[in-house]
Amino acid sequence: MAQELTVKKQDDVAGWYEQIVLKSQIAEFGDVKGTIILRPRGYYMWEQVQKYFEKHILPAHNVENAYFPLFIPESYFAREATHAEGFAPELAWVATAAKDDDAGERAILRPTSETAIVAAFGRWLRNYRQLPLKVNQWANVVRWEVKQTKLFLRGREFLWQEGHCAYQTNDECETESREMIFEYVKLCKELLALPVIVGQKTENEKFAGAVKTFTIEAIMPDGKAVQMGTSHNLGQGFMKAFGVEYMGADEQLHTPYYSSWGVSTRLLGATIMVHSDDSGLILPPLLVKRQVVIIPMSHKNNREFIMAKSFELAQSLCAFGAYVDERDQSMGFKLHDAEVLGVPIVLIVGGKELESHSVTLKPRDGEKCLVPLDELSGRITDELDELHMRLYQRAEAVLRERIETAQTLDDFKRIIGAGKLALAPFSGEIADEVHVEATYGVGTRCIALDTPVAELVELKCIFTGKPAVGYVYFGKSY
Amino acid sequence: MAQELTVKKQDDVAGWYEQIVLKSQIAEFGDVKGTIILRPRGYYMWEQVQKYFEKHILPAHNVENAYFPLFIPESYFAREATHAEGFAPELAWVATAAKDDDAGERAILRPTSETAIVAAFGRWLRNYRQLPLKVNQWANVVRWEVKQTKLFLRGREFLWQEGHCAYQTNDECETESREMIFEYVKLCKELLALPVIVGQKTENEKFAGAVKTFTIEAIMPDGKAVQMGTSHNLGQGFMKAFGVEYMGADEQLHTPYYSSWGVSTRLLGATIMVHSDDSGLILPPLLVKRQVVIIPMSHKNNREFIMAKSFELAQSLCAFGAYVDERDQSMGFKLHDAEVLGVPIVLIVGGKELESHSVTLKPRDGEKCLVPLDELSGRITDELDELHMRLYQRAEAVLRERIETAQTLDDFKRIIGAGKLALAPFSGEIADEVHVEATYGVGTRCIALDTPVAELVELKCIFTGKPAVGYVYFGKSY
Repeated sequence: MAQELTVKKQDDVAGWYEQIVLKSQIAEFGDVKGTIILRPRGYYMWEQVQKYFEKHILPAHNVENAYFPLFIPESYFAREATHAEGFAPELAWVATAAKDDDAGERAILRPTSETAIVAAFGRWLRNYRQLPLKVNQWANVVRWEVKQTKLFLRGREFLWQEGHCAYQTNDECETESREMIFEYVKLCKELLALPVIVGQKTENEKFAGAVKTFTIEAIMPDGKAVQMGTSHNLGQGFMKAFGVEYMGADEQLHTPYYSSWGVSTRLLGATIMVHSDDSGLILPPLLVKRQVVIIPMSHKNNREFIMAKSFELAQSLCAFGAYVDERDQSMGFKLHDAEVLGVPIVLIVGGKELESHSVTLKPRDGEKCLVPLDELSGRITDELDELHMRLYQRAEAVLRERIETAQTLDDFKRIIGAGKLALAPFSGEIADEVHVEATYGVGTRCIALDTPVAELVELKCIFTGKPAVGYVYFGKSY
Repeated sequence: MAQELTVKKQDDVAGWYEQIVLKSQIAEFGDVKGTIILRPRGYYMWEQVQKYFEKHILPAHNVENAYFPLFIPESYFAREATHAEGFAPELAWVATAAKDDDAGERAILRPTSETAIVAAFGRWLRNYRQLPLKVNQWANVVRWEVKQTKLFLRGREFLWQEGHCAYQTNDECETESREMIFEYVKLCKELLALPVIVGQKTENEKFAGAVKTFTIEAIMPDGKAVQMGTSHNLGQGFMKAFGVEYMGADEQLHTPYYSSWGVSTRLLGATIMVHSDDSGLILPPLLVKRQVVIIPMSHKNNREFIMAKSFELAQSLCAFGAYVDERDQSMGFKLHDAEVLGVPIVLIVGGKELESHSVTLKPRDGEKCLVPLDELSGRITDELDELHMRLYQRAEAVLRERIETAQTLDDFKRIIGAGKLALAPFSGEIADEVHVEATYGVGTRCIALDTPVAELVELKCIFTGKPAVGYVYFGKSY
């Protein structure tokens, strides 16, 4: 049984979000601080992300799944200097009572697996015929966050996929790391009904060890961004640090180019936060196993008949995971419950409607209407499609509303002051970014990718007057 | 390119096994001692186990997937005394540089998740309508082994599934924990082509915290057993330790009964060890993504024609993951390579055979034969089925040969001396088991389940003359 929500979205997004996640039985806090339990309804969402990958992304890019250990030797981690520095504050390692012969080196709990996978590539790779070499793993990763953790959005352990690819040329590497970020955009749209902004991270924000980091970011109801996925062109840095070389067609030794890309269970938190409302969870239907709940509306006299009809209906709608809420509770209670849980479609089965061979259908975010029984299955399919589209369009309208272009510093101050994201020409230099963040309290999200080259040539940073690296999104983030 | 095997199965099973795993590119040692990297060919095997579960086992038992944290509070672990004692030597925990407010309690890296899941059940469970409550998770677990580790068979981190179910009655609990072990038997037969012995663990060998442990064990070429999967009737111990209660239909509080069951990547190691031979890997075809390799046999004159035909053939056999070995190497080299890698079917495409619209087909464990092109697809399907059956039957014959019944102590000594498993009436008492192990160097594997009750009544332990708990398998194990 789901419980009442006591916080409103507009009053306190963070508090409302936590209630939604907990009360809709998607997830809960783990027993160790900063951890999360994905309950069956929440894990089902993640399984749909996995299925989308297995169907659409991995085969299209010839990527094979593999599994690398949770434990990485600390010395590996240190070989790429920027990488080591970037991850140092969040590292956790294993402690045991065992007396190991070769003890002395600590085993890090992987925060990401570049070092271990590059080391393996080094063992596997002999010649150019083996390239490109592409693997993906589904794994848990550990980042010992010291900031306040948040269900799905920031935790000490989370689930993700990490793809790792080695190439002969920088061109291939750059091309596929860009392609991958657009695969993520598509996944967000088609599965999560989430519009995102796409861009490249600035020098200050890029992945520790990357040449370039591409990112997608979703905008939450409070105007803060959530980084949803990243794809890195890692150049040759890791490969050189691990001495990885292959014999080229020219019979010379070469260093491969390297990309990695990942999305995590963060996706689920952003999806929940964007779509849900004050009545409870709203999810794009593809993320829900039980898409239809049937609520019988019976009297003493017709109880058996209505229940029988309800179960018959559930059977005929099993493709939607339909189930009957047969609890001994009021109609209002059950409708409320379905709203909190985010069941996409409610069907109310009553005696009067059945006489006209109809039932009442209510989409999670819409109005009741009467639907003839013989049109029901097709109608539900349509309603689910439309729900997905409505969620996407609504989120897209909010996204557009939340972003404004700033051509001057005054624009910028006004936009940031209104809690929006500012899209502004910016130098992209680290010192300037540190300054902007200290002065205005917002960081960069990413450099927009779609600025025409002709426009870029003329573009000047609104803070410094220096040549701009591009239009850059500024805003707060989770 | 696969390399030559230098150790024979009959000379040194352990050395041969390690070579098979490494050289067939199934797995390799991780960078931290006792860990394993599942390479794409190895991880594919595990994915097939997962798919079998998702299709055959989980829906049939109404089990839903969930995910619980890697980290378990140490105090949770200690609440069930036997459980705590059993796992204590292998525990690993997290160390960090973070100064946590609530530090003091260590976070254990899960060796198994009973305690965390029972704690969650306690939060979720209100009344009897929620029972049975069944979840499964796919996860990595950590057991800091101090014994010599072995690829797949003993490692400090491995992948597994763990099912956890709560019930109203002991009957349901006992029934499903038995059913689950027979689901595992079926999985071993249908997917892995592995015959196993089924039984109940003795008091000495049962899971730490269980009332009863059911087990399946496979027998390796050296006569040692590998525990392949277990299903535990955990009674009410964990539930009581965590104070889990629910409101019954009688409006009284009750303690649920609890079962858990799991199989791990060990399955893959046993499968490889049982089926493979001195030439390389042999796998049941369902575990292999690329089931057919096409080797072109061309001369200078017909090279283009043969290559075109080979790729055309690969295209038409894409359902079997067919690929062309187009490397500039000799026929002998390629055939050898296919044997090491365990490709189930080799097709040789030559000019003479093509003239008669045929190709040469060779199953991994069989003889070459000529197959007309228009029968090829159907024939490959049949050959793969037959390969699976042959592997099972061969392994079953070995299993039968490896087990002998002992009705006397002399029988027992002779059988054990011959490196076989002895099936002998035994008291089942812990002290007696410790004595037998110290005296004869073998432990119990399990108590056979299929002894008729009438026979059990009369049965006397061959070591002590006490009433026997049943016929018990004795032997060495991995």
